[in-house]
Amino acid sequence: MSHQPLIVLLTDFGTADTFIGVMKGVIASICRNAHVIDLTHAITPQQVREGAFHLERSLNFFPAGTIFVCVVDPGVGTSRRPIGVDTGRFRFVAPDNGLLTPVFERFPDARCHLLSEPCYHLPSTSATFHGRDIFSPVAAHLATGVPMDKTGPAVDISSCAKIPLYRPEPLNDGTGWQGEVISIDHFGNVITSFDASILPPKGTCSVSAGNATDLPLVRTYGDVAPGKPLAYVGSSGMIEIAVRNGNASNELQIADDTPILFFVEQ
Amino acid sequence: MSHQPLIVLLTDFGTADTFIGVMKGVIASICRNAHVIDLTHAITPQQVREGAFHLERSLNFFPAGTIFVCVVDPGVGTSRRPIGVDTGRFRFVAPDNGLLTPVFERFPDARCHLLSEPCYHLPSTSATFHGRDIFSPVAAHLATGVPMDKTGPAVDISSCAKIPLYRPEPLNDGTGWQGEVISIDHFGNVITSFDASILPPKGTCSVSAGNATDLPLVRTYGDVAPGKPLAYVGSSGMIEIAVRNGNASNELQIADDTPILFFVEQ
Amino acid sequence: MSHQPLIVLLTDFGTADTFIGVMKGVIASICRNAHVIDLTHAITPQQVREGAFHLERSLNFFPAGTIFVCVVDPGVGTSRRPIGVDTGRFRFVAPDNGLLTPVFERFPDARCHLLSEPCYHLPSTSATFHGRDIFSPVAAHLATGVPMDKTGPAVDISSCAKIPLYRPEPLNDGTGWQGEVISIDHFGNVITSFDASILPPKGTCSVSAGNATDLPLVRTYGDVAPGKPLAYVGSSGMIEIAVRNGNASNELQIADDTPILFFVEQ
Repeated sequence: MSHQPLIVLLTDFGTADTFIGVMKGVIASICRNAHVIDLTHAITPQQVREGAFHLERSLNFFPAGTIFVCVVDPGVGTSRRPIGVDTGRFRFVAPDNGLLTPVFERFPDARCHLLSEPCYHLPSTSATFHGRDIFSPVAAHLATGVPMDKTGPAVDISSCAKIPLYRPEPLNDGTGWQGEVISIDHFGNVITSFDASILPPKGTCSVSAGNATDLPLVRTYGDVAPGKPLAYVGSSGMIEIAVRNGNASNELQIADDTPILFFVEQ
Repeated sequence: MSHQPLIVLLTDFGTADTFIGVMKGVIASICRNAHVIDLTHAITPQQVREGAFHLERSLNFFPAGTIFVCVVDPGVGTSRRPIGVDTGRFRFVAPDNGLLTPVFERFPDARCHLLSEPCYHLPSTSATFHGRDIFSPVAAHLATGVPMDKTGPAVDISSCAKIPLYRPEPLNDGTGWQGEVISIDHFGNVITSFDASILPPKGTCSVSAGNATDLPLVRTYGDVAPGKPLAYVGSSGMIEIAVRNGNASNELQIADDTPILFFVEQ
Repeated sequence: MSHQPLIVLLTDFGTADTFIGVMKGVIASICRNAHVIDLTHAITPQQVREGAFHLERSLNFFPAGTIFVCVVDPGVGTSRRPIGVDTGRFRFVAPDNGLLTPVFERFPDARCHLLSEPCYHLPSTSATFHGRDIFSPVAAHLATGVPMDKTGPAVDISSCAKIPLYRPEPLNDGTGWQGEVISIDHFGNVITSFDASILPPKGTCSVSAGNATDLPLVRTYGDVAPGKPLAYVGSSGMIEIAVRNGNASNELQIADDTPILFFVEQ
C-alpha cells in the first residue's frame, strides 16, 4: 500500500482517561505508520444503538480501505464474540452485539470472521478492556497487511447479532411517517429519527409529538415567536424539535419513548 | 512537497459529536497523507471574536505552509461567503464573517478567493455544515497541491468582513491603557485583553476594574492574603484579575462590559 | 530512522483551550513528520502523583523509541528543573518534581540531563508554559535525532525528585495487604491502589474499608443485591469499591485518606 493505513475509532470510552491513548499506543506498537482518526468517543456508555447510528451516518465520509475499530461493548468479558467484517471497501472490528448492524444492511455480501486467533491479540487479555487487548491489535495487524481470514474462522453473518436501527415507518393512511426520539439534549431539544433526506423537494412539512401537533418545519429558532415550538433540521442533519427560549421535552411532554410523526402536505 | 502537508482545525464544534471525526474523514478521503492538528474545538459557540483571538495568538507556533480550517460560522447557510486566504506563509479557509480579521491585519498583502468552485466541495453541500462540505474538502485539495486561485475568483480583501479585535487603547492623559474583559471563567477569574507584552521591562504595574483600584500586578495567588484581589499573568498569557480563594467577578463587580485600566509607574 | 518518530503527551492541561494544539504546532515546526499521541490531558490539575500513576500504567503499551512529554507542573517558573531522561527504550522530558518516579524505579540505569541548552527551547521562554516553550521543542529536537546529552549537562538521578507511588504494603500478620484510595468518582465509587495483578490464581479475596468489612470480590454490580456493597476489578484495571445503586463513599464512610485492606483466604 502506497500510503498510510487509516484506522478510525468509535467508542463510548470518553476522553477523561487514558483508554484511548493506550489503544493508540497498542496500534503504534504493531503498525507504526498507521494514521488514527477519532470519529467519536462520546457515545453514551453502553448505548449500542447510538453507536450504530453514528457509524452508519459517518461511513460515507471515509476513504476506501479504512479500518474501523468500534467498541461499545456492554458484554465485554462475557461470551459475546469479537468479530471482524470485510466489506471489500471497509473493514471493521467490533463486538458481536449489533453495533455493526448498519454494515450488514449495507454490505450484505461482507465476509465475517471470529477474532479468535490469539497471535493477533495482546499477549495477555483482560476481561474488561478488549478495545486495548483484542480490537486495537487486530486492527493494527490488518493495517500491516494481515488478511482478515487469518484472524479466525469464518462466521456466517446471519448468525451475527442485529439490532433495530432508526427507520421511519410509513403511516397506514399514507399521510406521513412515524419515527422515534434518538436523544434529548441538555436544553430539552429533541433529536428525532427523521433524517433531512425525508424532506420532499416541495410541499409543506410538519411534525407532531407529545402534546404538539403540526409544528411547522422552519429554518431556525428566530422563525417563531419566543416560547413557541418549532421543528427544524439540526446540526446533526436530523429533524429536531425545540421551544424557542424554552425546554421542548418538558413543555411538549416528549420523552425517550414518545412517537414522532412527520407529515407532508403537497 | 517533501513532507506531509499540515492542516490545523479551529472550530466551535466541541468534541461531543462526530463533527470533527467526519471532517477528518473528508480530509483523508482527498489528501490521504495530510497531518491534521486540532488547535481547538472549544470556541464558545458562534463567538467569532473569540475564535479570531485564539487564531491570532496561535499562528506563530505553526510552521510555514500550514493550512488553517477556521469554522466559527453563525451565518452558515446564509449569503455569507466562504473564502480562502493565501498569505504566502499560511493559507486559511473560513467564512467571511470577520474570523480572519487578525490575518488581514498581519498580512495586508494576502490574496483572497471566493471558495465557489464546486469541484473542490463535496458533491452534495448541506445548508448547515460547511465545515464538512466546503472548508475541509477545499483545504484538503489545497494540501494536495491545488493552487488557491483555482478555488474561485479573486476577492478584494477590502470587501471582506472585519471585526474589532482586542486592542488596548492608550488613555488620553498618557498614564496607561484601557482594555476589555475577554471572558470570565467559572471561578470568577477575569481574563483581560492585556497581553503580557504590555508589561514594561521595569516599573510598577497596576490594574483597575469594577470597584477595585490599583490592584498590584503580582506573580501568583500566594502573593496576596486570602480574600484579597490581585492581578497576574495567567496561563493564557493574558493579564487576569482574581480574588484569592474568592470570586473576582462577583466581589469586584466586573462584568463582560466593564472597562479595565492598566497603569505603569516608572 | 525508517519510520515516523512517536511523541506521546501526558498533561493536566485539559482540552478546553489551545494549549495542546499550540504544543503540537511547536512540535510540527521542529519535526514535521513526528507522530503525536495524546495519552491524556485530564490529569487533575497539579496532581503529580496521579500523573505518575497513569504514566506508569501506560508505558508498556507504547513502542520502543517513544518520546514522552509529561507536564504536570505546579512549580513552573520556580527553580524546579526541567529534565530529560533516556532509558534506552524510551525518552522522557518533564519537570523534576517526581512525575518521573516510576521511570526511575523501573529503569534505575537511565541517564538524566538538565534541559538547559537554550538552542533547543523556543527563542522566548515564558514563566508559565514550559510545555510549549521547553518540553515540546526539546522533545521535537530529540525526535529529529538530537542526542539527549546535547540538551544540557548530565544530572545524577539520585538528585531528582521522587514521590511515593501507590504500592500496597503487606500486613504485619501476613494475612493480606494495605492500600490506599486513588480517587473517588462522581458516583461515589472508590478506586483503590490494588491492581488486579494482586489477585491470586485461586482463593477467596475480600476487601475492607471504612465501615465495610470483608466485601466479596465479585465480577460486577449485578452479583450483589441492590443497596449492597461490593468490590470488583474496574475498567481502570484497579480494584474498586461500590454500592449497587448507591454511593459507596458516603454509605461506607470512605474518604481520600481511608486505608483499604485486601485479604486472600486460600
